Amino acid sequence: MEEGIILMDNLWLTVAAILVLLMQGGFILLEAGSTRMKNAGHIAGKTVFTVGIASLVFWAVGYGFIYGDGNPIIGLSNFFYGDFADGYGSVDFFFQLTFAAIALTIAFGGFAERGKLAAYAIFAVLFSAFVYPLVAHWIWSDDGWLAGLGKQDFAGSTVVHLTGAMAALAATIMLKPRLGKYGKNGQVNDLSGHNQVFTALGVLILWVGWFGFNAGSTGGVADAFFGYVALNTQLAAGAGTIAALFLVWAINGKADVPTTLNGALAGLVAITASCAFVEPWAAVVIGVIGGLIVVVSMKMFDKLKIDDPIFALSVHGIAGIWGTLSNGLFATPELAAYNGSGSAGLFYGGGFEQLGVQALSVVVCALFAFVASYLLLLVTKGLVGGTLRVTEEEEILGLDMSEHGSYGYPENVQSSHSKTGS
Amino acid sequence: MEEGIILMDNLWLTVAAILVLLMQGGFILLEAGSTRMKNAGHIAGKTVFTVGIASLVFWAVGYGFIYGDGNPIIGLSNFFYGDFADGYGSVDFFFQLTFAAIALTIAFGGFAERGKLAAYAIFAVLFSAFVYPLVAHWIWSDDGWLAGLGKQDFAGSTVVHLTGAMAALAATIMLKPRLGKYGKNGQVNDLSGHNQVFTALGVLILWVGWFGFNAGSTGGVADAFFGYVALNTQLAAGAGTIAALFLVWAINGKADVPTTLNGALAGLVAITASCAFVEPWAAVVIGVIGGLIVVVSMKMFDKLKIDDPIFALSVHGIAGIWGTLSNGLFATPELAAYNGSGSAGLFYGGGFEQLGVQALSVVVCALFAFVASYLLLLVTKGLVGGTLRVTEEEEILGLDMSEHGSYGYPENVQSSHSKTGS
Amino acid sequence: MEEGIILMDNLWLTVAAILVLLMQGGFILLEAGSTRMKNAGHIAGKTVFTVGIASLVFWAVGYGFIYGDGNPIIGLSNFFYGDFADGYGSVDFFFQLTFAAIALTIAFGGFAERGKLAAYAIFAVLFSAFVYPLVAHWIWSDDGWLAGLGKQDFAGSTVVHLTGAMAALAATIMLKPRLGKYGKNGQVNDLSGHNQVFTALGVLILWVGWFGFNAGSTGGVADAFFGYVALNTQLAAGAGTIAALFLVWAINGKADVPTTLNGALAGLVAITASCAFVEPWAAVVIGVIGGLIVVVSMKMFDKLKIDDPIFALSVHGIAGIWGTLSNGLFATPELAAYNGSGSAGLFYGGGFEQLGVQALSVVVCALFAFVASYLLLLVTKGLVGGTLRVTEEEEILGLDMSEHGSYGYPENVQSSHSKTGS
Repeated sequence: MEEGIILMDNLWLTVAAILVLLMQGGFILLEAGSTRMKNAGHIAGKTVFTVGIASLVFWAVGYGFIYGDGNPIIGLSNFFYGDFADGYGSVDFFFQLTFAAIALTIAFGGFAERGKLAAYAIFAVLFSAFVYPLVAHWIWSDDGWLAGLGKQDFAGSTVVHLTGAMAALAATIMLKPRLGKYGKNGQVNDLSGHNQVFTALGVLILWVGWFGFNAGSTGGVADAFFGYVALNTQLAAGAGTIAALFLVWAINGKADVPTTLNGALAGLVAITASCAFVEPWAAVVIGVIGGLIVVVSMKMFDKLKIDDPIFALSVHGIAGIWGTLSNGLFATPELAAYNGSGSAGLFYGGGFEQLGVQALSVVVCALFAFVASYLLLLVTKGLVGGTLRVTEEEEILGLDMSEHGSYGYPENVQSSHSKTGS
Repeated sequence: MEEGIILMDNLWLTVAAILVLLMQGGFILLEAGSTRMKNAGHIAGKTVFTVGIASLVFWAVGYGFIYGDGNPIIGLSNFFYGDFADGYGSVDFFFQLTFAAIALTIAFGGFAERGKLAAYAIFAVLFSAFVYPLVAHWIWSDDGWLAGLGKQDFAGSTVVHLTGAMAALAATIMLKPRLGKYGKNGQVNDLSGHNQVFTALGVLILWVGWFGFNAGSTGGVADAFFGYVALNTQLAAGAGTIAALFLVWAINGKADVPTTLNGALAGLVAITASCAFVEPWAAVVIGVIGGLIVVVSMKMFDKLKIDDPIFALSVHGIAGIWGTLSNGLFATPELAAYNGSGSAGLFYGGGFEQLGVQALSVVVCALFAFVASYLLLLVTKGLVGGTLRVTEEEEILGLDMSEHGSYGYPENVQSSHSKTGS
Repeated sequence: MEEGIILMDNLWLTVAAILVLLMQGGFILLEAGSTRMKNAGHIAGKTVFTVGIASLVFWAVGYGFIYGDGNPIIGLSNFFYGDFADGYGSVDFFFQLTFAAIALTIAFGGFAERGKLAAYAIFAVLFSAFVYPLVAHWIWSDDGWLAGLGKQDFAGSTVVHLTGAMAALAATIMLKPRLGKYGKNGQVNDLSGHNQVFTALGVLILWVGWFGFNAGSTGGVADAFFGYVALNTQLAAGAGTIAALFLVWAINGKADVPTTLNGALAGLVAITASCAFVEPWAAVVIGVIGGLIVVVSMKMFDKLKIDDPIFALSVHGIAGIWGTLSNGLFATPELAAYNGSGSAGLFYGGGFEQLGVQALSVVVCALFAFVASYLLLLVTKGLVGGTLRVTEEEEILGLDMSEHGSYGYPENVQSSHSKTGS
């Protein structure tokens, strides 16, 4: 029996890993759909490249830094994992690898439509080796210092989403806004994404893959608890969608599609920390607030003139913070005891203790991810000739042509060019 | 052992639910691909919104109306499901939820390219609360009155597909045909869908997800019977594809792609009721007839001047009826005993009894779904200012702009407009 | 316990089969994205049709020729499989069916953008009945003659990829290059694919589905060995991506997107034979060489003026050969004993024995698949009026219109036509 259950745990974890890998397909569509035609081939292609880089770096050092024997700050063994046939260990490795690749994909958000491919390639290695693994070690390894404090982050609102978003923030600040995004007189121009079908399908595929992310983070099949996690995930995602739809409809008079879709993602990001800790009604509340907050956040970043082309900062950053904090509000005593290293949330008699740990972890991890990414981007900048950004001419031409030598949509873009005489 | 098998049942059901959720991605592509560019963002976005609405309504009341304790007509407990951590129950809830969302997505077919978003939003709540749950209760709950008569509908040819299609029929009749679909002199104009790659990929993704739908409806892993269901599903889908391809090729002289794809879907819809009840050769026959019937049905609705933009009536309605009836023809005694509440079909010595029950259920469920949807649409019409439809100007402009304020493909549509001077 | 493990084996195999079926969605995107707009509906639609044909032929005769009782050359029982309810057998049947459909999809590569639909339809039946099953029988059935020699091909570098590619080679030679591909003065023109987002998403979906292909070929859950196979698969795919990216960047000065994507596929094809036989470092090496070799191969076929529109020859053929041979180099003694019918590779003290068997199997299978396909294409040619190819006018117009009667993208293609006056 015991052996059968262990095999079932491994089977579920492998299916979950495959679902998380499928999320990269969602990101291809979400990111390409949210940007302009002239950059679409670049953005789609670099996502596949991202999976490749993240996989090799995770194998070489990432897994070791996270789960190797070491100290509360970093692991220091198990590099170049897997020199023997170990099914169980390999399953865990593969599952963890897919999470690391998601964090890197989120970090790309700061480069979109203007970052040099060479700069991204170098930063991808550095981020995957030195930024993500440290945060993951602190929170998810047994001897991580935040784990020791009782931090609760079931599937990575902080570890994956906030860390990726803070790297994206560092990049977007260093790279500066896209040409034409902010006008001279302070106006904010809408550089609309070119394909909302891609964006919507991307969000749906991310939603599907999120069951690997959240329900897979049970690590096994005990008590069919993955079903409870899935239920909370579904409700929060639905609630985020509806909340964002109606808020943007009320504000703009029109039910903007990309904003609605960001509501779905914000609900998902927010419930990621808490999906195993809260009751379904709380999952709905967490999702609703996630959906509302992302609408406000999108406007805030534009006010701050921080260009966030694919909404990584709002969706993964702000909703990631909310999700992490919500655990300190809504975690029930029973579920904290079942899953957690910490305790119940404020609304369940836990006082401010868990909320404090969650808040501390947000501040520390966000700061670390931002500062480390910023410094690594400075290194990268030196290595690629002093600028992370393509030239103005290249940006106008599009990164498909400047970085890869051919358009992603040669028939559409060329016909568009011949028509306008450009 | 016993506990291990129960966990495995729950694991399979969760994987199946995730596959059924993935079908929504298929619908995004199928529906967007089958309609015009100016409505593509709307159609893709509303599908994600559909999943959100269906999830929250199912949680609030849908699950309770179907599976709550009550009477043969309706369940009346278990509202706002899941206020405690119950893995097994949550798995079943999540699985059932994904089916409810599919029915609503099918119902949308009647609104396509001309229905107001506000009207659809209200109807979506009403349909999810009051139409789908009743039919599902009658057929799938233990005390449903059609279940008591021995109705056999393994995965929902009637419950999901026919119910959704009858709601679509009510909507399409009330909304009237799209502008330009039927000419003054009786001609039928082809308002071609804008992207057959989307349509084909959508069908393929639906096909993949259908293994969650059909094979998942085993509810567990006993005897690996899900494999037999999968085999029948695959054969019927293949047979439907080939049959439709050759029939349309013979009729038109060209192998029309959308018609061929509808053949695949018709095979899938048809086998949904019977996949666990028939032999493989019968699955092939059911698929072939599904594929032929859908071609004829598409032409019939156009003759009747009933506009069916995404073929919901033909694919989910007519093939759903055929699938339900086919159970009364081809169900074997052994499989009826293994799975069913009824008996063998006409061709296996069961006489007309099962066929009669199947026919009765078709008539009753179709009538109920149509009339209830019609009445709820009248209510909806009152709530949204007297018309379910956008204005003529808005329809010409496209629903992306009228309902959401931006084009789904801003670069393509704008360049197309500037070119034609519109 | 025993019964539970068997059920778990069947559950995993079914999930794997569903993943392999999902790969067809990857092929829709990869093939449509790699070709021109005027052929996109045709290519997407024929992929769904391919699944239909492959399913029915496999059911009728394919499974029987492979796994029926017979002799070392061919099986001769189990035609029209499954006239009774057998869950376990059905699972295996369904899993094997999905592989047969992949081989046929690969074979289509030789018809792309110029083959008549009728010719492909006939050849699809013949290939599925007489080419693929024989190679599969030789290598994967217990009494196959190559299996008897100790051939090791875990998931089909030879059986699926090379066989499909050789059929594509036969077709592409008989059909001759696309109009305009090779200029009169020897220049090679780039008939760019129309949508790199499709291509990239297609590759990602193939990558995801490949875990069904490779890790599913464990046939069960014993020792969670599927995890080890998944680990090797992931590393090889990542390594192939990176290797191709940097090689093409070095050669062209630009990081060509389609070439990078072919690197990912080449890594996957190459590791397919060896994923269960090698250590992770070797998986990385196999992937790197796969990624490098595909870049060279793409250039080689163009030098030879063999037109390979969707790179089937390079990706599935050349990388398939490399993958098969690599097993004879890197197979470890422990893993050969655990999985194989043969022995360790050259670098692990196995001498040239296993490498010789692998090389022999490559030569024999490639020759058989090529010659048989060539002869069957001659038969096909006779049946469709003496030419496998559409007319020059039809090719210029596009196969969407010539073979199916409507454009895949009616709004884009028509607007493009009206603009250019064509």
